[in-house]
Amino acid sequence: MISVAAARQIVSAQSRLLPAVLLPFDRSVGSVLAEDIISPLSIPSFPQSSMDGYAIRVADKALLLEIQDELPAGTSRELLLQPGKAIKVFTGGPVPEGADVVVQKEWVTVTGNQVRVSAEKGIEPGSHIRMPGSEIGKSVVAIPKGTEIQTMHIGFMASLGLTEIPVIRKPSVAIVITGNELVQPGSPISFGQVYESNSFGLKACLQQLHIADITVSYTKDTLAETESAITQALTIHDLVLITGGVSVGDYDHVAQACDRIGINRQFHGIKQRPGKPLYFGTTEGRWVFGLPGNPASVLSCFYQYVRPLLHALSGRAPAKPVRAALAEPFEKKPALGFFLKGYCENGAVSVSQAQASFQLSAFVQANCWIELEETQHYFAKGTEVTIHPFF
Amino acid sequence: MISVAAARQIVSAQSRLLPAVLLPFDRSVGSVLAEDIISPLSIPSFPQSSMDGYAIRVADKALLLEIQDELPAGTSRELLLQPGKAIKVFTGGPVPEGADVVVQKEWVTVTGNQVRVSAEKGIEPGSHIRMPGSEIGKSVVAIPKGTEIQTMHIGFMASLGLTEIPVIRKPSVAIVITGNELVQPGSPISFGQVYESNSFGLKACLQQLHIADITVSYTKDTLAETESAITQALTIHDLVLITGGVSVGDYDHVAQACDRIGINRQFHGIKQRPGKPLYFGTTEGRWVFGLPGNPASVLSCFYQYVRPLLHALSGRAPAKPVRAALAEPFEKKPALGFFLKGYCENGAVSVSQAQASFQLSAFVQANCWIELEETQHYFAKGTEVTIHPFF
Repeated sequence: MISVAAARQIVSAQSRLLPAVLLPFDRSVGSVLAEDIISPLSIPSFPQSSMDGYAIRVADKALLLEIQDELPAGTSRELLLQPGKAIKVFTGGPVPEGADVVVQKEWVTVTGNQVRVSAEKGIEPGSHIRMPGSEIGKSVVAIPKGTEIQTMHIGFMASLGLTEIPVIRKPSVAIVITGNELVQPGSPISFGQVYESNSFGLKACLQQLHIADITVSYTKDTLAETESAITQALTIHDLVLITGGVSVGDYDHVAQACDRIGINRQFHGIKQRPGKPLYFGTTEGRWVFGLPGNPASVLSCFYQYVRPLLHALSGRAPAKPVRAALAEPFEKKPALGFFLKGYCENGAVSVSQAQASFQLSAFVQANCWIELEETQHYFAKGTEVTIHPFF
Repeated sequence: MISVAAARQIVSAQSRLLPAVLLPFDRSVGSVLAEDIISPLSIPSFPQSSMDGYAIRVADKALLLEIQDELPAGTSRELLLQPGKAIKVFTGGPVPEGADVVVQKEWVTVTGNQVRVSAEKGIEPGSHIRMPGSEIGKSVVAIPKGTEIQTMHIGFMASLGLTEIPVIRKPSVAIVITGNELVQPGSPISFGQVYESNSFGLKACLQQLHIADITVSYTKDTLAETESAITQALTIHDLVLITGGVSVGDYDHVAQACDRIGINRQFHGIKQRPGKPLYFGTTEGRWVFGLPGNPASVLSCFYQYVRPLLHALSGRAPAKPVRAALAEPFEKKPALGFFLKGYCENGAVSVSQAQASFQLSAFVQANCWIELEETQHYFAKGTEVTIHPFF
């Protein structure tokens, strides 16, 4: 068995960036830009009015001006403003050539076909005109490579006229569920059976990371079926997450099946609770985790080892751990790293009830994992510890 | 025109909780539970081993024990352990009646069909046995009404065997885009035209709030078409978000169209920048926002007025504003509330470049809105202000 730190190091050393793909810009939230987005146009692409009003020459501001024409938003007419005249313009619409100011309609008096500026100040060159490129110039970097696309970026990409953008591909994931005792939610349950929850828990975590290409399969606890399920999963997916069957017992076939398939065993067993039997292997640019069967162990191992790999594969920065002070003292078994479900508020973190590896009820209230170092065994109230906030 | 505070108050007064609906539990992240989830079973539902090992009577621990049988995980056989014997058990599988301890396999020596406990301590009643209901008892509240479903809740709901759960319905939303100057991303653009970005920006925001029932329609800047588009949107949606056409100008028809349809005008115009002309109306349990056309104004108004309504309709707690210290001094026009794009890190917030209402480029770096009070006009460096972090 290896330490938590050594296991993290091995996972990190085995990660690499997946290749770039084109994605519709409005489905790219959570992906990382593989190249700079270069603005294909200036915004605005023409001199644009920011007000409803009249485009005039500043030099003419004291004159009674004939209304030469009007340019509603959406017109493609390119007019030249004649000296001593005004052209009616609208918010978002073009300002005619020759005009150097837009006077807002509240600042003029209109009589028939003539207009006079009534305001005494604020009529300055450029007022209420958005110059071409004042948002962004053509061929300028609009969003730099490496940016993780956020919800608030989508509108800006639309305004650039983009359709598809180059992003680092997200890994596709196969979930392979082992365990003869498992029954699907919604079916009746008999003595000795348990509802299968790991596929649902893992899928929810993957979807939270914007991973959509997920396949779930089920296998019985035999070596042949386990081997066949993993082989099948590897044919089409980057990452395989197996749950259960990873200890060393009569019905634990995952590690042996992986050996037989020819997967390179990177580690099997970590000095930690929960998730001691965690398996990790690699083969021809694919990654395999043998997660424990207990649902809380699955989620803990997902957070501590699978999520960092997913981030690295898709170019995301590692999640930042946070420091918080223990609200109560805690004593743990020495020589094992602990990952506890906790609730953190205002910098103080409490250890949740129901910490056993089969217990999921703590997740109703918990909002983070508390990481307790392998070497230490007593943690006084107020000790600063590392926490990993849920998503 | 009314103040920001008054507008917020009116939106809040017009909100109500939408009715409950049943949703598949694994598509419920972001929804709020309309009723307590009551556990339909005890977990575990049978005495369950937490180890691979042998189920025995503690009283027999010094004896050489015949191996009576084995109970792999997933078996439905209900055995009775005979005195002086042991039954082989497995992690997650049942413990036979009559046994009061599971001895892990590393703590025994097996010879042929007989087993002897080799460990000298730790053989205590209940060890390595998960008693029925030790995770949760039957008919107990598993997740309380009002809980906002998180990713980490999904596995627990599966383990309860649930399929559908009662949640507060999310509103359906119609987005109506006005503006003759708008062109869809991907199409060529002519002089005077602008790429349409508001529908994409709004959809991304709604999807971030787990709202999936969204329709987008486009209308030309005429009163008849605007009236018809809003009427159509109201027939099937709870909430209508119109962009553009909301000022008072020759091509601004939204407020008049809403009046003609018979929508109750709640307000039109707020003392704020951006988003001064914001319109809000209600009709027969439906809500209508007339948002400005400028994309940054749209996103600001969405955050400050639409999002709180969406939260209230779907039973979510209001988003918590945060306080932060201004990294640089800022001077603003008095008598208007300001919402600036900002970047907050370690409690200090900077005002982003490109604050004009047509500018979206600031969203590449910004991570919050900075709210500046109507009444104040100079903000010294270090002034504590309210910020609204993006999602």
